[in-house]
Amino acid sequence: MPDPLRLGIAGLGTVGTGVVKIVQRQAKLLQARTGRPVVISAISARSRDKDRGIRLDAYAWEDDPVMLARRDDIDVFVELMGGADGPAKAATEAAIAAGKDVVTANKAMLAHHGHALALAAEKAGRVIRFEAAVAGGIPVVKALTEGLAGNEISRVMGVMNGTCNFILTKMQHDGLTYEEVFDEAARLGYLESDPTLDVGGIDAGHKLALLAAIAFGTEVAFDKMELEGIERITIEDIELAADMGFRIKLLGVAQMTGRGLEQRMSPCLVPDNSPLGQLENATNMVVLEGDAVGQIVLRGAGAGEGPTASAVMADVMDIARGIRLATFGQPASGLAKAKSAKASIPAPYYLRIKLQDKPGALAKIASVLGDAGISIDRMRQYGHTDPTAPVLIVTHKTSRAALETAIAGMAGTSVLVGEPFAIRIEVV
Amino acid sequence: MPDPLRLGIAGLGTVGTGVVKIVQRQAKLLQARTGRPVVISAISARSRDKDRGIRLDAYAWEDDPVMLARRDDIDVFVELMGGADGPAKAATEAAIAAGKDVVTANKAMLAHHGHALALAAEKAGRVIRFEAAVAGGIPVVKALTEGLAGNEISRVMGVMNGTCNFILTKMQHDGLTYEEVFDEAARLGYLESDPTLDVGGIDAGHKLALLAAIAFGTEVAFDKMELEGIERITIEDIELAADMGFRIKLLGVAQMTGRGLEQRMSPCLVPDNSPLGQLENATNMVVLEGDAVGQIVLRGAGAGEGPTASAVMADVMDIARGIRLATFGQPASGLAKAKSAKASIPAPYYLRIKLQDKPGALAKIASVLGDAGISIDRMRQYGHTDPTAPVLIVTHKTSRAALETAIAGMAGTSVLVGEPFAIRIEVV
Repeated sequence: MPDPLRLGIAGLGTVGTGVVKIVQRQAKLLQARTGRPVVISAISARSRDKDRGIRLDAYAWEDDPVMLARRDDIDVFVELMGGADGPAKAATEAAIAAGKDVVTANKAMLAHHGHALALAAEKAGRVIRFEAAVAGGIPVVKALTEGLAGNEISRVMGVMNGTCNFILTKMQHDGLTYEEVFDEAARLGYLESDPTLDVGGIDAGHKLALLAAIAFGTEVAFDKMELEGIERITIEDIELAADMGFRIKLLGVAQMTGRGLEQRMSPCLVPDNSPLGQLENATNMVVLEGDAVGQIVLRGAGAGEGPTASAVMADVMDIARGIRLATFGQPASGLAKAKSAKASIPAPYYLRIKLQDKPGALAKIASVLGDAGISIDRMRQYGHTDPTAPVLIVTHKTSRAALETAIAGMAGTSVLVGEPFAIRIEVV
Repeated sequence: MPDPLRLGIAGLGTVGTGVVKIVQRQAKLLQARTGRPVVISAISARSRDKDRGIRLDAYAWEDDPVMLARRDDIDVFVELMGGADGPAKAATEAAIAAGKDVVTANKAMLAHHGHALALAAEKAGRVIRFEAAVAGGIPVVKALTEGLAGNEISRVMGVMNGTCNFILTKMQHDGLTYEEVFDEAARLGYLESDPTLDVGGIDAGHKLALLAAIAFGTEVAFDKMELEGIERITIEDIELAADMGFRIKLLGVAQMTGRGLEQRMSPCLVPDNSPLGQLENATNMVVLEGDAVGQIVLRGAGAGEGPTASAVMADVMDIARGIRLATFGQPASGLAKAKSAKASIPAPYYLRIKLQDKPGALAKIASVLGDAGISIDRMRQYGHTDPTAPVLIVTHKTSRAALETAIAGMAGTSVLVGEPFAIRIEVV
């Protein structure tokens, strides 16, 4: 009988409970696939008595996850508590120091401390695996690190916050305002306790930063990411964009440019007939582009008990099978410091403005755009009853700098009402 | 300086040339990611003098791939010749016997001899990897074997022959007949030298058989697969299906049922708004369903120099990184013999018939269906100028047996013109 792989699980929320269920239900299958039993030795959670619908009495209990991480009877510390700092980080560091491998679903911790943790793990000869931290059940960390390992990656894109996609698609289908759907998402329990993590793009930004580190061989640089949430998106924008053949998505894009690493998580327009455009509800999608493989699209559930536990188990199974990989796909000490670039790659833009309804107003705006070197692909002025005319412009490719010049110029025309609202159109 | 991983490449067609290009172009990247140089030591191909647009003079040459496989200066035998038997099989066996790992893109060889080769490799302590054999650049073998390793897989589906999908979508968009588009595909070089491999579903069937072995822990059983090609699909079927909200795809489905393993590669209807329905041109798509993860969809190029070479390199990189896995995800000696089941899971069907244009004809058909226990979801009779009326029926879920009873019953009604044509509607 080969040695079992012994897990210590810290955190028994949705994901932790899901992992325990898989280990209990699929013991035979896991052993057939890895050649050894995969067992749970010890657990830790905030409440010992809460009924989670699973039997836990066969496992040793630790109140303190740090003590769990140091136990002699575990090989892998499975960190499912969450939080960038605090107990999750302390216990992860303790596990590495005690010679344990680590499997975690904690994107916040890795986005902030991933490089330091990876260095520590490599020094200790241990691995940190985090498939569950990015896009739930979609095996995207594996696809990028291993499946596309022969590629120079040119771009990584993704819709990686299911809650935001739920809100945006629900607004569109039901014609509801952002506030109305936000309240519904809150009622359904879709939002983090601090909703800014979701709707502000922070949670999705954490995930993108981890993928970017793997893709481009750079140290995780979440602090260099351009972040913009979906709070300013109106049902009007969604409907006008649809009218032009686009959908609005909270889209992450990371790409290496001549000027450095560009990372942004922000609302973008994508064509409604593209895989990203067709993504509905809380589903996640990641698009990977490499010089040899072209474009690979991965789609699946980005959250939830089963999908996230599936990803945790993928890492556990790898370790059980003896598969050992550097945290970000290559030795952390060899990762380059990311030189960070402001979004510099030209793109078409969607521009929504309101004009005073007087002769020559539109001509003035068009001339400001022309002066900034921006040419117009399509323009629509919509019927209106109030004295301001809503105008929608889709530009040809232009730089962000030129766009900002034009927007500043519009303010000086005296025909504008309110602020222009611009959204990048990502070429997918 | 760590030891290099030394490749011997047999076959320098499209894929082999692509692999050489990646090894030459990305030497630095490959070494950064694996921690060791990845180099080519020796090559073999049918013609030594052919200009492939790449420099080969640094590599030893072997006329005989078997001699290449046995060379002392290679660690990995990369088999890119193709063909189920002959030199590919002889050289693969020689490589294993000589203690080499094997990377192959050869679905035909593995569909027919995969189990025997896996047994031999395991006995010799060597690995056989075949990411490139299934769905080109999509890392689906890895996703299934490793990424979803914690799941009991319930179903694997895929559009895995780009040529067939090209033909079917081109027929639809351009309103052309099967024969017309087949000729165009031939002109474009999209068809195998024996086109039956493509349009008869055999090539895609090979791929599905390999995925089924991994998914269900069974010996490869290509000989038990139900195979049906796209040759009988008419432009009329495509248009009528579209009218009902469906697309016709050459779809592979493998699932474990109470009665055994069901494997079929055949034309199916799928909803036009599903990811499978929206798949255009030569792109491939694989859908994996597991008890924990739910549904994962993978999409990408299924063929071509870059994508297939990318998949070959994924396997090479795994070996360079020390990742070693059983060929089908678990020891070959432990794989179950697949008990094979005829497609038994009830499904809705699309049924195209032609009726004599006389009173009561439709009623007779409806009554035959009712007698067989089949209820009708939708029925349309189309306008016509000749004396036969085209009728389209979409049934509710029914067994194949009941459908066959009904079809036999229709023949006895004397209102039918020609043969009914039935296509399964896959619930995706």
